[in-house]
Amino acid sequence: MADDKKFVEQVTSRDVDFAQWYTDVVVKANLVAYSNIKGFIVFKPAGYALWENIQKLLDARFKATGVQNVYMPLLVPEALMAKEGELVQGFAPEVAWVTSGGTEPLTERLCVRPTSETLFSDFYAQDVHSYRDLPRLYNQWCSVVRWEKETRPFLRSREFLWQEGHTIHATAEEAEERTQQMLNVYADFLAEDCAIPVVKGRKTDKEKFAGAEATYTVEALMHDGRALQSGTSHYFGDKFAKAYDITFTDKDNKMKYVHQTSWGMSTRVIGALIMVHGDDSGLVLPPRIAPVQVTVIPIQQRKEGVLETAGRIAEALSNFRVKVDDSDKSPGFKFAEQEMNGIPLRVEIGPKDIEAGKAVIVRRDTREKIECEIGAIPEKVGEVLELMQREMLERAAAHLEAHTYVARDKEEFEKTFAEKTGFVKAMWCGSRECEEKIKEDYGVTSRCIPFEQEEIAGTCVCCGKSAAKMVYWGKSY
Amino acid sequence: MADDKKFVEQVTSRDVDFAQWYTDVVVKANLVAYSNIKGFIVFKPAGYALWENIQKLLDARFKATGVQNVYMPLLVPEALMAKEGELVQGFAPEVAWVTSGGTEPLTERLCVRPTSETLFSDFYAQDVHSYRDLPRLYNQWCSVVRWEKETRPFLRSREFLWQEGHTIHATAEEAEERTQQMLNVYADFLAEDCAIPVVKGRKTDKEKFAGAEATYTVEALMHDGRALQSGTSHYFGDKFAKAYDITFTDKDNKMKYVHQTSWGMSTRVIGALIMVHGDDSGLVLPPRIAPVQVTVIPIQQRKEGVLETAGRIAEALSNFRVKVDDSDKSPGFKFAEQEMNGIPLRVEIGPKDIEAGKAVIVRRDTREKIECEIGAIPEKVGEVLELMQREMLERAAAHLEAHTYVARDKEEFEKTFAEKTGFVKAMWCGSRECEEKIKEDYGVTSRCIPFEQEEIAGTCVCCGKSAAKMVYWGKSY
Repeated sequence: MADDKKFVEQVTSRDVDFAQWYTDVVVKANLVAYSNIKGFIVFKPAGYALWENIQKLLDARFKATGVQNVYMPLLVPEALMAKEGELVQGFAPEVAWVTSGGTEPLTERLCVRPTSETLFSDFYAQDVHSYRDLPRLYNQWCSVVRWEKETRPFLRSREFLWQEGHTIHATAEEAEERTQQMLNVYADFLAEDCAIPVVKGRKTDKEKFAGAEATYTVEALMHDGRALQSGTSHYFGDKFAKAYDITFTDKDNKMKYVHQTSWGMSTRVIGALIMVHGDDSGLVLPPRIAPVQVTVIPIQQRKEGVLETAGRIAEALSNFRVKVDDSDKSPGFKFAEQEMNGIPLRVEIGPKDIEAGKAVIVRRDTREKIECEIGAIPEKVGEVLELMQREMLERAAAHLEAHTYVARDKEEFEKTFAEKTGFVKAMWCGSRECEEKIKEDYGVTSRCIPFEQEEIAGTCVCCGKSAAKMVYWGKSY
Repeated sequence: MADDKKFVEQVTSRDVDFAQWYTDVVVKANLVAYSNIKGFIVFKPAGYALWENIQKLLDARFKATGVQNVYMPLLVPEALMAKEGELVQGFAPEVAWVTSGGTEPLTERLCVRPTSETLFSDFYAQDVHSYRDLPRLYNQWCSVVRWEKETRPFLRSREFLWQEGHTIHATAEEAEERTQQMLNVYADFLAEDCAIPVVKGRKTDKEKFAGAEATYTVEALMHDGRALQSGTSHYFGDKFAKAYDITFTDKDNKMKYVHQTSWGMSTRVIGALIMVHGDDSGLVLPPRIAPVQVTVIPIQQRKEGVLETAGRIAEALSNFRVKVDDSDKSPGFKFAEQEMNGIPLRVEIGPKDIEAGKAVIVRRDTREKIECEIGAIPEKVGEVLELMQREMLERAAAHLEAHTYVARDKEEFEKTFAEKTGFVKAMWCGSRECEEKIKEDYGVTSRCIPFEQEEIAGTCVCCGKSAAKMVYWGKSY
């Protein structure tokens, strides 16, 4: 038991030091290892399995809307990158440049893709000719490189894994609709699969993507009250089409520019899963996203029949993602590991249980212990997993609500951020000056202009002038 | 019909100009597009879907042997790369170097991974301490960059997609066994899923992977008689362990070096699928690997009931990967497209068929037309797909056998390569000089020293000295 204690003790309490707790959990739950390449991480099996599940669930949602996967080159020639002025300005400070290939210096340097608008645009310009070729609904799963100065596993690193969808359409309306549709796909995925509720809205001009006409975002609230931008969807109008000459002949026989979108979600979602649901014992994974949903843990496993019964229970649970932990560690250590790894349920089965024809199912989130007849385990596990998925979302939604504040004027705004961490809903005049001043004075940024607007007050919390919009403000990751 | 003809005419005959036929097919079947970045290609939806299926099938085979997926950094610091002398020598001429990140030049340049032995070794060195931590059976799916001079889609390009497995073990025996096991996984995957028979064997020292003690290979024979190395598995002994200091405390409490393997298969497999099975009408995909297995093509689709019946047939086929082509193209054009795309079966259904309660199923490979009652289509489709999968392998195996020749002496060896293209089995003394002379004189390389050895003659076909091994020789891609 000394070992078990040590195992758990190594995690800092989440309410004492949330940042340290996060770092402890990503390492102790074996999600990542720090590599010897500054700013780059190694995804260990448990971390990558989580990403594989995210990919599988999200990809199915994409494909259900007609999206197809493709793969574009890793490297982007400088001149190609430079065709769209805003994009290159936005990304230039953070790209990695390849300057030689083989033994020869390159005549033109190539950047490792930080995002692939340029490549998709260049491809579409060659590939699309007629309205019959539209829309194109392409997505790619890949890694991108951005030379960040401060890095944290999953949240910000020099290389990260993501998907980036890039679509082109015959009309602005259709492209705008797709931008919203994909934002909704993200919101639904986060709510239904990740048990993470979000606020949907539009980014201010200051916070939008370089080169976009409009950026939409889903913002989630972490346990510590800080916001995490968890997915974005951009509407480009015909800006890239003009820069890269993506034209088509329309039904009316006129040459027109396409209208374009892009949308991305990354391994940040793993960070969100950790920070929304985790507790002082480690990860807590929602059942739908968990690579392993149930661990069967034999007690006194050397006693006759225990391992066999554990095996039979696992077999009966083959509709779920199930594992038996028959390692030679102590049950206490196995419990601690199952908790650290965030596996939604464990089934404890020992000689006494077998005698009584029962086993104990323990929920990771509430630690509730459910006694269950052995034959009824599969049905019970199904029920409990569903309940757990639902209740995890409810708890996260309650947390989001409890940490969303309203500030009617400057004084309230100031006071709220002095005392609380969370979303603050407040009115804004729409000027960049006020946005910058708020950031400078309180260290918070505009998270989004939510689709669901409320008229909290008539004037901007910063300048006191007539207010245009209600904005969610917060400290962000 | 003019259109249909044009569609088909654009493909060069495979027996007239195989190289041009290949290029025509990859483009016309919409597998790839050439990008504006020299040596890099774009995977279009049909090409990427093929890769997704390959991934899915191969990944399941890996996981069944206990392999877990991880993800390592994209970039490798030069000093880390240089730790293993042979590897760096082998790859230095063909890597791309990143020399600046953001606005700053880097203090140490980083290469874009050409392969990841170095990164896995560096990781394992930190992560493994005890025999209890072994074996580690990790794999990653990623893209790698090698600065090739001549490129061809799927066969050789500056960036390609692949998987690379890297395992470490407590003993040499276990590592060697794993090397063989993964080679067998490749051979089984190629035969059973891709209908591609292979010759299994060991590479000569000249042809083995830089840094490996032994390289094993699966060699396939293309329609034109040239060989394609389709997957390799390497045994490293403790070479990398010593270079990267990967040690563990064994059961006997002694510090030991691990023994290591790596094994890879890439998008080259798509090239093999095209060149083994394709014909003058385009791709022919084996049913198990085909992203779409059946296209239902309505004839006179505007007539009442035709589209509905086509839809109902597709629904009844939902256990298969099925599509209805209800576009407004002519049936002839749709047939040509289905053939070009290599979709294993098409179901033709028109008003007369409906009246007779029947439809026509057409096999892509043999063009056989099978009349079938509408209600019996799902069963029939299942049967025909299985038969087709089996017969495609049989045909490819017959082709391999028919193009494998035996040369007992220099004269026969010379004559065979003057007249034929295929594998030539011949004896070899084991010297690098002879291997190099054979390459120089006949433009062929040793493909492998097959596991199934035959004593064809007593002397080397090159020098006439006593021969050690039978080797498969051939022209390669």
